[in-house]
Amino acid sequence: MNTADSAEACVIGVDYGTLSGRAVVVRVRDGKELGSGVFDYPHAVITDALPRDIAGDGGTRLPGEWALQVPNDYRDVLRIAVPAAVADAGIDPAAVVGIATDFTACTMVPTRADGTPLNEVPGFANRPHAYVKLWRHHAAQPQADRINRLAAERGEAWLPRYGGLISSEWEFAKGLQLLEEDPEVYAAMDHWVEAADWIVWQLCGTYVRNACTAGYKGIYQDGHYPSEDFLAALNPQFKDFVSTKLEHAIGRLGDAAGYLTAEAAAWTGLPEGIAVAVGNVDAHVTAPAAKAVDPGQLVAIMGTSTCHVMNGAELREVPGMCGVVDGGIVPGLWGYEAGQSGVGDIFGWFTKNGVQPEYHQAAATAGLGIHEYLTALASGQAIGEHGLIALDWHSGNRSVLVDHELSGVILGQTLATTPEDIYRALLEATAFGTRTIVEAFRDAGVPVKEFIVAGGLLKNKLLMQIYADATGLQLSTIGSEQGPALGSAIHAAVAAGHYADIREAAAAMGSEPGEVYTPIPENVAAYEELFREYKALHDYFGRGSNDVMHRLKAIQRKASGITSEAAVTGVPVEVSA
Amino acid sequence: MNTADSAEACVIGVDYGTLSGRAVVVRVRDGKELGSGVFDYPHAVITDALPRDIAGDGGTRLPGEWALQVPNDYRDVLRIAVPAAVADAGIDPAAVVGIATDFTACTMVPTRADGTPLNEVPGFANRPHAYVKLWRHHAAQPQADRINRLAAERGEAWLPRYGGLISSEWEFAKGLQLLEEDPEVYAAMDHWVEAADWIVWQLCGTYVRNACTAGYKGIYQDGHYPSEDFLAALNPQFKDFVSTKLEHAIGRLGDAAGYLTAEAAAWTGLPEGIAVAVGNVDAHVTAPAAKAVDPGQLVAIMGTSTCHVMNGAELREVPGMCGVVDGGIVPGLWGYEAGQSGVGDIFGWFTKNGVQPEYHQAAATAGLGIHEYLTALASGQAIGEHGLIALDWHSGNRSVLVDHELSGVILGQTLATTPEDIYRALLEATAFGTRTIVEAFRDAGVPVKEFIVAGGLLKNKLLMQIYADATGLQLSTIGSEQGPALGSAIHAAVAAGHYADIREAAAAMGSEPGEVYTPIPENVAAYEELFREYKALHDYFGRGSNDVMHRLKAIQRKASGITSEAAVTGVPVEVSA
Repeated sequence: MNTADSAEACVIGVDYGTLSGRAVVVRVRDGKELGSGVFDYPHAVITDALPRDIAGDGGTRLPGEWALQVPNDYRDVLRIAVPAAVADAGIDPAAVVGIATDFTACTMVPTRADGTPLNEVPGFANRPHAYVKLWRHHAAQPQADRINRLAAERGEAWLPRYGGLISSEWEFAKGLQLLEEDPEVYAAMDHWVEAADWIVWQLCGTYVRNACTAGYKGIYQDGHYPSEDFLAALNPQFKDFVSTKLEHAIGRLGDAAGYLTAEAAAWTGLPEGIAVAVGNVDAHVTAPAAKAVDPGQLVAIMGTSTCHVMNGAELREVPGMCGVVDGGIVPGLWGYEAGQSGVGDIFGWFTKNGVQPEYHQAAATAGLGIHEYLTALASGQAIGEHGLIALDWHSGNRSVLVDHELSGVILGQTLATTPEDIYRALLEATAFGTRTIVEAFRDAGVPVKEFIVAGGLLKNKLLMQIYADATGLQLSTIGSEQGPALGSAIHAAVAAGHYADIREAAAAMGSEPGEVYTPIPENVAAYEELFREYKALHDYFGRGSNDVMHRLKAIQRKASGITSEAAVTGVPVEVSA
Repeated sequence: MNTADSAEACVIGVDYGTLSGRAVVVRVRDGKELGSGVFDYPHAVITDALPRDIAGDGGTRLPGEWALQVPNDYRDVLRIAVPAAVADAGIDPAAVVGIATDFTACTMVPTRADGTPLNEVPGFANRPHAYVKLWRHHAAQPQADRINRLAAERGEAWLPRYGGLISSEWEFAKGLQLLEEDPEVYAAMDHWVEAADWIVWQLCGTYVRNACTAGYKGIYQDGHYPSEDFLAALNPQFKDFVSTKLEHAIGRLGDAAGYLTAEAAAWTGLPEGIAVAVGNVDAHVTAPAAKAVDPGQLVAIMGTSTCHVMNGAELREVPGMCGVVDGGIVPGLWGYEAGQSGVGDIFGWFTKNGVQPEYHQAAATAGLGIHEYLTALASGQAIGEHGLIALDWHSGNRSVLVDHELSGVILGQTLATTPEDIYRALLEATAFGTRTIVEAFRDAGVPVKEFIVAGGLLKNKLLMQIYADATGLQLSTIGSEQGPALGSAIHAAVAAGHYADIREAAAAMGSEPGEVYTPIPENVAAYEELFREYKALHDYFGRGSNDVMHRLKAIQRKASGITSEAAVTGVPVEVSA
């Protein structure tokens, strides 16, 4: 059936999220999405106990803050979602010329030298540390705290590249936890592998470390990892962590890591030998899907939290950013990442906890969800009519303050304050948080010129207009509903040699904007006034004038009988769409 | 049936609230409450339009912030509730030796020389200004603002006696509004009478101005009202307001204003000629009912708002108090009043607006009200476990900041914050507000030695323990459920000559404490820590470091299209039980 001509060449993009993997079939010529398939991970996220089907009856109980996954669930996405997508598209599998994947990050797999995950090695199925540590595994916070303290003390040059904070979610903190809590598993581990790279290894049989996670999560800067000196000061046994577990050949984004093995061809039904792209991260891979690969094009992936990615021609140190990585989004440019640790999460918390029954009933009667109902009510308000200012720090603050001990504020309530007032104030607070990030980039000499939104929250038109008005930037939303998977497909087309580079592929295959929101001058002026109030509170509570939030957390911990540093919850800054 | 011996002498106390009047029959010997009767005012509170049964079809529409009442409703309480109470008590009416009343304040009746309310004068039934202006009529705010500005400019000596602020609710602001908005009604008015005194006039046929409202609401200090000079500077036509409308003989609390007229005896069924006590205010009259008539005994009447009354041996100027009046609570002592403008109102607002359906359902299933349910959940928490600090300024702040443009704050929210967390933080915020007042009295040299609670909120045991722990003071609740009416009855007994003075009558007739709450040392220490945080925020937002709340109100007014000063809502500081 080799009837497909080259014009009909297709690629597969696979987006590995927190709970499922989604494959799309995309036409190389124009980026048209022809079909898709999804597969929910059978073991989902493991937080309480190891699964009995693997670990047996003695399934070990997990402490708080743990979040594990099972690597074979990722293989099952290849076995099930990919063929489903091909079938849904109705194409001949022979037309597929390449495959690429993106993953949550930092999600880490401990493996043997051949890539076998340790939990699949006999004798290790009942060891929690032999499993995948998902991005939102936060039990390595004590290790992260030590890394940050030591790096600050020693003035490590790489620390400012991460806005001054290495997350508990990242490779070093999780690796150090593994060493210190289960030295036997650590000793048996030959590679400490990003899941983004492990899945590529499964596809092509070759381990290539992608430039994106190596930089953002692996503290790989200017060709170096943190020194042996530094690691030994953390823990003498950790001294050779980089040389024995982490270091590996690094692949540029958009390059081929290798070619589909016979085994992976059998799983997927795709032709053996097609290009397999270097791995990538869900947020970063969305930039080309949104045609945002030039300096100054900021893509905000807005979901429970928001991840901001943007290319810059030059290296700058932006206060509070999550990271800046050479080639971290596209080769040849510096990839900047920033984040707001709570966005949709905050709206969800409020609608779940803070809205009276009458509103829920009225929403149901109107056939609306509670978010839509509150949004409709809030849409009728003039800016400032609610009289409120909120601080969007319910999950702490990543950019620009890098302080997960901060907390939320609502100011200005009266007895006439309604739920829609508070809801709108929370929407606005996150917009002011974004503006604070945009201004930090501007002040650091990396100006934001365009603002593109991807992720689930783009559906809220009021929210989008508020962001345009609060930032004064024209805002467009990504047209595709499969941003990350489309982005991966674009990388697959480049890896397969159908385009010269990601920029060219993005121009041909990237999504046209969905909606465009233009700042309304009088709204911009009105938000200017409110933003000044936000900024004053932001600096007062966030920059040490009044450390009440830190003291309240300490009091809270003492009152709850929690004394160890382990009680500090790390800030989840990743978006997993 | 004249079988009652002198030992069985009874008195009647009548408490005029915002929506109803309540009469109790009390035994003179020991204060035993023998029976009660209540009557709801047929016209309740008039806020939208004058009532058709009086004003006819052309019932004038009222502007916002207006709140009127109909004087004849007060007479109906005498006709209905008093006989009902006597019947309920099962006593011979001939045993009744005196009657006394307490009223909401400042509630003002414009009358002719004979006491006829102007709305009952032919031709005036359709004139809003001819009706009673209830305490919570807030439409005289522009006039109050002018009074305060001018008094501050001129350094009027009486201003500090009111904590620096004359309320829009009081006699001068309401009188000036009347003059300026309806000069004809003003011209027809012979007396501008407190309802507290008008009802006494109805009972005994004599107009006596009580020392309490004359001082607290009428700016009568050291034997003088504000000068003609001052009044003329407000408005030339207002120059003779005191001499032509306000000034009148002043009666001491507990004295007889006169004796029951034949007409009033016919209304009430009581013996003609029995003593009628000088009028009084609901909050102040509660002090003797709680046996709190000595210096340093603070009575907090806790309802939607809280009114604090306390006697002192000496005159001190306490920052932010509502007023200090010679003989304002009992003759011979200085009566101090302070207030928190939002207390139960804030809890009510939160439970109505800010609690999810599941909680309401669970409360209903448990057979509890939502307040009880949240209180039960909050009771299980250690102090500080919720991680929150709130400012209780949803209705502004009377004492000690005297600023009704302040607003509420909740700080410290995370995605784990629950409604019971916020509820408890609000309870605590009002306790910290009370502590701030207690400290202001202490710092001014008028120390609080005992803390007695009356009013509806005393039922909440968690709230009471929080107040004891947050203030470090032993707290007792009044045993009677009819505090104000019992207090009036005590005044009636004194007026009838059965006791030498209020102190002696209170000792015999006052209520024994209901519950006693003792501060728990470790809780006191825990609240000490949280109070420091409250205090820092209180001073930062309340004393001008960051005037964000004022600016938000201004923005809100502009956004709502409200431009005049009339939009500023006065702060209701009265408690009407």
